[in-house]
Amino acid sequence: MKRIDNRAKDQLRPIEIIPNVNRFAEGSCLIKCGNTQVYITASVETRVPPHVPMGEGWVTAEYNMLPRANRERSRRDVSKLKLSGRSAEIQRLIGRSLRAAVDMKKLPGFQITIDCDVLQGDGGTRTASITGGFVALALACKKLQREGYLTESPIVQNVAAISAGIVDNALLLDLCYEEDSSAMVDLNCVMTGDGKLIEIQGTGEGRAFSVEEQQKLVRICTKGIQELVEIQNRVIQEA
Amino acid sequence: MKRIDNRAKDQLRPIEIIPNVNRFAEGSCLIKCGNTQVYITASVETRVPPHVPMGEGWVTAEYNMLPRANRERSRRDVSKLKLSGRSAEIQRLIGRSLRAAVDMKKLPGFQITIDCDVLQGDGGTRTASITGGFVALALACKKLQREGYLTESPIVQNVAAISAGIVDNALLLDLCYEEDSSAMVDLNCVMTGDGKLIEIQGTGEGRAFSVEEQQKLVRICTKGIQELVEIQNRVIQEA
Amino acid sequence: MKRIDNRAKDQLRPIEIIPNVNRFAEGSCLIKCGNTQVYITASVETRVPPHVPMGEGWVTAEYNMLPRANRERSRRDVSKLKLSGRSAEIQRLIGRSLRAAVDMKKLPGFQITIDCDVLQGDGGTRTASITGGFVALALACKKLQREGYLTESPIVQNVAAISAGIVDNALLLDLCYEEDSSAMVDLNCVMTGDGKLIEIQGTGEGRAFSVEEQQKLVRICTKGIQELVEIQNRVIQEA
Amino acid sequence: MKRIDNRAKDQLRPIEIIPNVNRFAEGSCLIKCGNTQVYITASVETRVPPHVPMGEGWVTAEYNMLPRANRERSRRDVSKLKLSGRSAEIQRLIGRSLRAAVDMKKLPGFQITIDCDVLQGDGGTRTASITGGFVALALACKKLQREGYLTESPIVQNVAAISAGIVDNALLLDLCYEEDSSAMVDLNCVMTGDGKLIEIQGTGEGRAFSVEEQQKLVRICTKGIQELVEIQNRVIQEA
Amino acid sequence: MKRIDNRAKDQLRPIEIIPNVNRFAEGSCLIKCGNTQVYITASVETRVPPHVPMGEGWVTAEYNMLPRANRERSRRDVSKLKLSGRSAEIQRLIGRSLRAAVDMKKLPGFQITIDCDVLQGDGGTRTASITGGFVALALACKKLQREGYLTESPIVQNVAAISAGIVDNALLLDLCYEEDSSAMVDLNCVMTGDGKLIEIQGTGEGRAFSVEEQQKLVRICTKGIQELVEIQNRVIQEA
Amino acid sequence: MKRIDNRAKDQLRPIEIIPNVNRFAEGSCLIKCGNTQVYITASVETRVPPHVPMGEGWVTAEYNMLPRANRERSRRDVSKLKLSGRSAEIQRLIGRSLRAAVDMKKLPGFQITIDCDVLQGDGGTRTASITGGFVALALACKKLQREGYLTESPIVQNVAAISAGIVDNALLLDLCYEEDSSAMVDLNCVMTGDGKLIEIQGTGEGRAFSVEEQQKLVRICTKGIQELVEIQNRVIQEA
Repeated sequence: MKRIDNRAKDQLRPIEIIPNVNRFAEGSCLIKCGNTQVYITASVETRVPPHVPMGEGWVTAEYNMLPRANRERSRRDVSKLKLSGRSAEIQRLIGRSLRAAVDMKKLPGFQITIDCDVLQGDGGTRTASITGGFVALALACKKLQREGYLTESPIVQNVAAISAGIVDNALLLDLCYEEDSSAMVDLNCVMTGDGKLIEIQGTGEGRAFSVEEQQKLVRICTKGIQELVEIQNRVIQEA
Repeated sequence: MKRIDNRAKDQLRPIEIIPNVNRFAEGSCLIKCGNTQVYITASVETRVPPHVPMGEGWVTAEYNMLPRANRERSRRDVSKLKLSGRSAEIQRLIGRSLRAAVDMKKLPGFQITIDCDVLQGDGGTRTASITGGFVALALACKKLQREGYLTESPIVQNVAAISAGIVDNALLLDLCYEEDSSAMVDLNCVMTGDGKLIEIQGTGEGRAFSVEEQQKLVRICTKGIQELVEIQNRVIQEA
Repeated sequence: MKRIDNRAKDQLRPIEIIPNVNRFAEGSCLIKCGNTQVYITASVETRVPPHVPMGEGWVTAEYNMLPRANRERSRRDVSKLKLSGRSAEIQRLIGRSLRAAVDMKKLPGFQITIDCDVLQGDGGTRTASITGGFVALALACKKLQREGYLTESPIVQNVAAISAGIVDNALLLDLCYEEDSSAMVDLNCVMTGDGKLIEIQGTGEGRAFSVEEQQKLVRICTKGIQELVEIQNRVIQEA
Repeated sequence: MKRIDNRAKDQLRPIEIIPNVNRFAEGSCLIKCGNTQVYITASVETRVPPHVPMGEGWVTAEYNMLPRANRERSRRDVSKLKLSGRSAEIQRLIGRSLRAAVDMKKLPGFQITIDCDVLQGDGGTRTASITGGFVALALACKKLQREGYLTESPIVQNVAAISAGIVDNALLLDLCYEEDSSAMVDLNCVMTGDGKLIEIQGTGEGRAFSVEEQQKLVRICTKGIQELVEIQNRVIQEA
Repeated sequence: MKRIDNRAKDQLRPIEIIPNVNRFAEGSCLIKCGNTQVYITASVETRVPPHVPMGEGWVTAEYNMLPRANRERSRRDVSKLKLSGRSAEIQRLIGRSLRAAVDMKKLPGFQITIDCDVLQGDGGTRTASITGGFVALALACKKLQREGYLTESPIVQNVAAISAGIVDNALLLDLCYEEDSSAMVDLNCVMTGDGKLIEIQGTGEGRAFSVEEQQKLVRICTKGIQELVEIQNRVIQEA
Repeated sequence: MKRIDNRAKDQLRPIEIIPNVNRFAEGSCLIKCGNTQVYITASVETRVPPHVPMGEGWVTAEYNMLPRANRERSRRDVSKLKLSGRSAEIQRLIGRSLRAAVDMKKLPGFQITIDCDVLQGDGGTRTASITGGFVALALACKKLQREGYLTESPIVQNVAAISAGIVDNALLLDLCYEEDSSAMVDLNCVMTGDGKLIEIQGTGEGRAFSVEEQQKLVRICTKGIQELVEIQNRVIQEA
């Protein structure tokens, strides 16, 4: 079986991360994973939610699809007066994942909001949001250091995310929309730079999957994450 | 280290599933897992959402915490005019999980809604909702068969769910609220009766976790699921 | 004419009040009036709304039907983004009624919220909520006394409620759903332990009713209230 | 004790009903009861809600306070994104009351919506809305007859409403805002032209009230209703 | 071509401004422009929004159509859970316009809210709201002076508004609803007493319009504004 | 006085319109006017709103600021459960303006929605949305022609928009954010390719402006529009 875009089974789509696309945000990037494009800003504010302990900081995220990110135009959430359940779920995932990258004690009194607006969605928008969100977050932290608000970096480790899935019983890395639509199993891994898990979410869409299959999917993801982390670090350093 | 309630590391809390607690619903149960209590009804309607193919059925779920399900009273969603992000995420999980139990072609034109209202929450409310939701769903299907609306059962396999986690570096099955609050890693498995995965969701709350740890947590869950499936089958048969 | 369940015209349905059904709430009960079941919690918080005079307390109520409390599943309020007009009206009635049981000066700085969630509705859910709400409220006050937050009880009198109606020109106490559906006149009385009125609400559904009929309906209710107050007091004492 | 405006205990405030204040509505009036002013329109539409039996009509009502109807400006409901509980309760009462005036079989396929917008509120806005609402409703029905849409009048009886209350232990008819604020007991009666009850709602604000007191309050209301019905009939005839 | 109501091309409809129609509001009026009627109150509060500089005041406006202000009944905004886009646009215009009448430094710490509720709409409701809103605002300021809250008037100039349009290629002042419906071009001017512009909003509905036409329309409006300002001043002085 | 970016008084900021930035939308572009950037898609659907006459089409628009389009992060509309009044006003303006470009009879049964999402806002976002919106609209129409859905172009004329204002009594074209913030008068013109007006909106922020000043501002805008129309045509042709 050949993949729709001739990739190897464990090959990522072409990734491009363009840093500093927004002149107002403290950190920002546009991440392109194949045809998926997410516009990401990291905004620093000097107030934290009430549940945060004194002297600590916070990282949160919001996720939104632009109306024509999809093949069909979808209505804006505001016109339905509610955040879609899917968006709510995804932005909670992004926030949890990126908080694992940060030592909150080293971000005292600051909240960083990662806004992920999907310009074009072709599969993997949540993993692209996390991978690109880390870059925007790191750039914002660098700026806070550069401007003297922080004396050391609150970033403790890279966080990146990728999907793998089972399509026609083949295990594939980084599903595009068409592969995702026909996938029997879909699994997202959020991992650190040294290959540990932060989040794992797997779903059997068409059939249940064995524990062994699940382990193989994690292994494929691990390879993809390593490549993503290298790209993240290069972009952050050069920005 | 001893567990707070003296359970073995891989021991479930006491489980009780009381079937047919609601005289109007086509299927219903009250599931108690330790101090967690979820009131579940399965409601059959003869219309399906527009995305469902002709001649098929659908299963969906709604999840809600009663205001005093928690140690502190929480405001109702309606007073905030929005479904909480957490509830949205959980009810999507319950729906996806229970759809894996059903052959939609054998439920033609019927939608079954599983309503999970948490009376008391002491950890594991989403897994209890899935485990109990399967019972309510199966009871509703039996009633449809019994009354001649269906000629054969649309249930193709059991679906049950349980959590496992890492607390003080110990791997524990079926976390109660106190254990969950201090867990470093929390993983939920939704599985079929024969030990295959439907959903897996794991989160590192305090630290990242290795792929090996993740595999061990899945193994502990597998044991718990087997016990839950036996209880499900006994309750459904005796109801 | 015989009643559908063979009761005498002025006979209550079987009443059961199970106290302390929720381990987190300061007071709670499950009240069953025939097939009507309401799950009630009383939650104490140490803040009062702004309109409450310094040094006083407050009692408020919220009322909600679970989706399958009725013969047909009804949509949750949150999915419609508004509290139903009926629920708004009922919870205002419950709150006003229960405030009459309390000397607010003896509840300084505390707000008690009575949450009434109808598990099963077979007529009389608002009166059951008031009757059971009083029990939950009284149990919460006893706990506040027992734990030393209050030196004397803020409860000044029992409050209970019951309906009566005219069905086929017969005057009946405590209508069940089927009787209520065909009632020409429906009247709810909220009364104190010594037979005084707190609230009276009567509606001619199918026809107007004379002042004399209205007085007879109040008289029937008075009898029912006396029995309910005895049950309340027994349950509170034994709890 | 003298009343604040020197009225006799059982005397209404000066009533004025100005018909046809709106050139677009099928029926309309401005009702003034003392300083209370409600602007009322009756709008006819040729579609009925789904629950109405084939061949019948429907009457419904909406109630709203303008922001400066009160001594203090209040926020509009739309800015809070919800109908106030009080308004919800009142408009349900108005709708139920006015439906008692109509034989729905004689209004086939028509819905009449009574919009009651309080320009100035000085007590008794709900009863003024019902009393004036009947006039607007009757004018709309006359117009439907006059224009040949109906062959006979669907109005079967007058419906009017008034309040009575206990202030400083005196029983008073038609409370103004100041009396209402200090009333111990407040009772609203909706009655037909021949003195029968459609709705009765009584509340003990500061104390419980005896069954005997309740009966006296109804009797006072009966007197007031008779005067209101005469005014209604004169206005409708002259309009 | 004759106008529908025989007016000259540059003639206003009959204007009537009845001051002090609301006994609670600090300022109020009912403005009638032909068949258009707007009920306006000016409410003073002693708190200003956060964006207002210390020691200054603020003026804001809300605009609402009553359900039967139109030929067809329209649903209330609250039932749709959102302010209509048209109302949002108009109330922003009214607020901006009336702020130009006031020296905010002379209104220290006060916010005046102008509520414009359209009882009957026959074209020109936004311009009537501005013209009448100025009267209500000025009356409220006079009251603040009279009662000693302000030592000098914060009103620095009159503000009034009128529309002009092109109907069948004729340039007409003060369009009524029927003219407005068939207008090719519609232009609203908000002006000061000495003929300067505060706001100008012109729209080509059916065709584009030349810069020269636009200038002629402004000139016609200037004449109308002068007449309106005279009426405003007379009403304010006599009130 | 020199402008902040050294432009001549009647000089536009650098304009760039990048067509076809979205692979799913029927038409799209990214328009950059100085530092203002708006991402625009034109989506074709084969259904029109109910008010559209049989056999005609419709064009509508939605406008949204991304959270970090501004110097400070702003909350998303959905989190406030309402469209901001400013956005409502702007998207109505964009829709009206672009409808003037189209002969609806030549777009039978199609609705084209222009989504304008501001990535970065530095003044002039509404005029950039209109100017770029025309390009996206024209590209979508070309595609409909190319694919045979339309036999001739429904575009009847170019539509473009620009602002001018009075800053320190100097009349300037195309205000950037800083100029806009200190402008005394701000005027937006929407014009056709041959210099006729579609919309004009002018506001005196700090002072009233004379009719003569208003005319000069329109003249400056006319010059800017001519340049914009040339850019539009070049981009559309080359795309």
